[in-house]
Amino acid sequence: MFENRETHARSPAHELALDCLAAGIEAAQPEVAVARHLSLSADGETLDVMGETYDLGNYDRVLVLGGGKAAGGLARALRDLLGDRIDGGAVVLDAPADLTVEVHVGGHPVPDEGSVAGARRLLELAHDADERTLVLAPITGGGSALLAAPVEGVSLEELRTVTESLLASGASIDEMNAVRKHCSAIKGGGLARACGDATVVGLLVSDVVGDDPAVVASGPTVPDSSTFADARAVLDRYGIDPPDSIDERIDRGVEGGVEETPNPGDALFERVSNHVLVGGHTAIEAAREVAEEHDHGTRLLSARLRGEAAEAGLTHVAVAEESLDTGEPVTIPGVVLSGGETTVTLGDTYGEGGPSQELALRAAIELPEGAVLASVDTDGRDGGSDAAGALVDASTVEDADEARDALARNDAGSYLGSRGALLHSGRTGTNVNDLRVLVVSG
Amino acid sequence: MFENRETHARSPAHELALDCLAAGIEAAQPEVAVARHLSLSADGETLDVMGETYDLGNYDRVLVLGGGKAAGGLARALRDLLGDRIDGGAVVLDAPADLTVEVHVGGHPVPDEGSVAGARRLLELAHDADERTLVLAPITGGGSALLAAPVEGVSLEELRTVTESLLASGASIDEMNAVRKHCSAIKGGGLARACGDATVVGLLVSDVVGDDPAVVASGPTVPDSSTFADARAVLDRYGIDPPDSIDERIDRGVEGGVEETPNPGDALFERVSNHVLVGGHTAIEAAREVAEEHDHGTRLLSARLRGEAAEAGLTHVAVAEESLDTGEPVTIPGVVLSGGETTVTLGDTYGEGGPSQELALRAAIELPEGAVLASVDTDGRDGGSDAAGALVDASTVEDADEARDALARNDAGSYLGSRGALLHSGRTGTNVNDLRVLVVSG
Repeated sequence: MFENRETHARSPAHELALDCLAAGIEAAQPEVAVARHLSLSADGETLDVMGETYDLGNYDRVLVLGGGKAAGGLARALRDLLGDRIDGGAVVLDAPADLTVEVHVGGHPVPDEGSVAGARRLLELAHDADERTLVLAPITGGGSALLAAPVEGVSLEELRTVTESLLASGASIDEMNAVRKHCSAIKGGGLARACGDATVVGLLVSDVVGDDPAVVASGPTVPDSSTFADARAVLDRYGIDPPDSIDERIDRGVEGGVEETPNPGDALFERVSNHVLVGGHTAIEAAREVAEEHDHGTRLLSARLRGEAAEAGLTHVAVAEESLDTGEPVTIPGVVLSGGETTVTLGDTYGEGGPSQELALRAAIELPEGAVLASVDTDGRDGGSDAAGALVDASTVEDADEARDALARNDAGSYLGSRGALLHSGRTGTNVNDLRVLVVSG
Repeated sequence: MFENRETHARSPAHELALDCLAAGIEAAQPEVAVARHLSLSADGETLDVMGETYDLGNYDRVLVLGGGKAAGGLARALRDLLGDRIDGGAVVLDAPADLTVEVHVGGHPVPDEGSVAGARRLLELAHDADERTLVLAPITGGGSALLAAPVEGVSLEELRTVTESLLASGASIDEMNAVRKHCSAIKGGGLARACGDATVVGLLVSDVVGDDPAVVASGPTVPDSSTFADARAVLDRYGIDPPDSIDERIDRGVEGGVEETPNPGDALFERVSNHVLVGGHTAIEAAREVAEEHDHGTRLLSARLRGEAAEAGLTHVAVAEESLDTGEPVTIPGVVLSGGETTVTLGDTYGEGGPSQELALRAAIELPEGAVLASVDTDGRDGGSDAAGALVDASTVEDADEARDALARNDAGSYLGSRGALLHSGRTGTNVNDLRVLVVSG
């Protein structure tokens, strides 16, 4: 899975870390998830999705409408499962793909004109759906940027400005989405609302901590419990001064002058269901199996780690040291697993890298002998860089001051690159939480 | 141990958290440690210290020379053990105490004239020691400030200025000590050097992560492997512009114009031994025993947590959530224990609180139902405030924005105080690592 695997696989511990990562990312592939969780009855009349059954005889048309970094893989798996039972549809991806439904390419992490065109087309197809339509909606991480449908009066450029401010502020995904849902016609249940009387089945690959469907891709098929007031609070909390159009819309919304996003009590959700096919534990449990096969003790630290990436790196150091010292929280040899999405608070200028790389570099400065840490973004592109993450040990950092400087400049990628510690996988085809594998061999 | 215990003990989980804390702090008491680790032979001729035997017949005099927040308790326990075998000595404490050796009171966390007078007196008594003298040296956390012997040419005020800058910068204890040892006649092995040909037995209560004797109270009886160059690097790393006298001394030191602190190869350490009587795991293991008696699963996260306090709070949230969700890293009902010393990076202005309170407040913002977190500084004075720490749960924070504001202003203490969440114990008599007890009941 990783380029130049042999240069990284310097010891059995390094090899094990790479094998755990590879197994985790493989298990999170959309095709693997569809094969596990969806099935068509032998007579082809009913579709089972995680125990819920849909009688295809009730529908004249089956549409595929969705988006996100892993939506292409889901759409392909749906085609393989349902063949010509699918009548059409569209997905918005971050790269071209060869599918039987329309493919639009949008921008990520910052939405672009392709994101807008794609989202408009999705809404257009949704408006054509009726009660005899079954909408299968592959919704995955990255969809927040790839599906951009700014409301009337707000331009893409303005949406982009506020998104960039939010990304740079250290705001959580939930907080970003409270703002974005209230400037969008598709997020926060907008796609489900546009589908009118159709039956909507959300098929989700979650990249968010806790796997809340409302947060994945900003929840196009999911009720929104956030309000215009929440959006206002987020902007205030991070001192963000949004473009006037957004500022005014949110003000009008707070005053009740604009329609709220559909909330959990809205009747429209009676014909909508959402299924998380791949979640926070999918990759972790697959990685754990590999560690167990290699007779290592395993310990899940948390699938929900969040906060500043570099600080989370230091936590992994503390856990490695303690395990070497006392056999807790993991016995030796052992593997500590963690997931979640850490964030990076950017300075005014910044270099190469992403949260998984900052986490790895901060850890590497203090990592004890006998510990190896692999830290990746499962989509293969950490923070939008072309590296998935990094594989580090006590030898990675030769000059701690230089490494600290790189962290201070948000330039972990350059430092790790110069030390041959970056992991490159290309696009993996999936997008779930970040994954960390800490091998402690003693 | 805690004031108004009944108001805090709102549920069995809250009670358990308080009981674990109390047991942990009790086990770390100097008197308990001396009773466990030191013994006098039946004939009163030999003293055993953690397996090492000292023949008292070899010495004409036994002196007690030391300092730190828990040094008073150690000196008292030595008096109880050795009685009139002790011929004299002096300790520098943060509060008056009734002892048979001289008591000097110094300033903490910022050294004052009392710290200087006390340290000078210690060095004076040390210079009188000879090869027929046994020096018992109770050295404990807080000793870095309480034992202040600025080298010639550096004033206490200048030492204080650089200490305050270091405390506010987010520098680690190790980093602070690299600077302080190189401006001091007593730190970094200075006391041992002053003792000349005497036998020196360091009796340490460690408040530092990893229990490195060189770091406890800046290691008055321990070799110093840091150098003038390290001190310079710390000042550069945190952009600290020290007073000219210190700047010049470190410059001269880097150039070899000033005597270095005694390094690990120095022959003087052949007659010096150091024993950690109370360390990072002492309180944790005692707390764990209480949890086990209450049939709770236990998990040590790490005794070495460090980094920004608020971020460590968020880690405890992630661990609580994961345990509630999957029974890892601790089974339910369970207790997760952690130690270490987190730090706070102060803004230009700041309010009430300390690291243990910031950790607790940040956690409280997101702590799930069914989790209770107790977070204290074991000396009873978190960050120099009059609170030991806080006991929080999901109900502690009513207004998350207000709590975030308090954190941003480094005013966690005021917020927690207004919510009745602060724990007050008064001075506990010991000073080891911070202690956190997370009770997850589900």
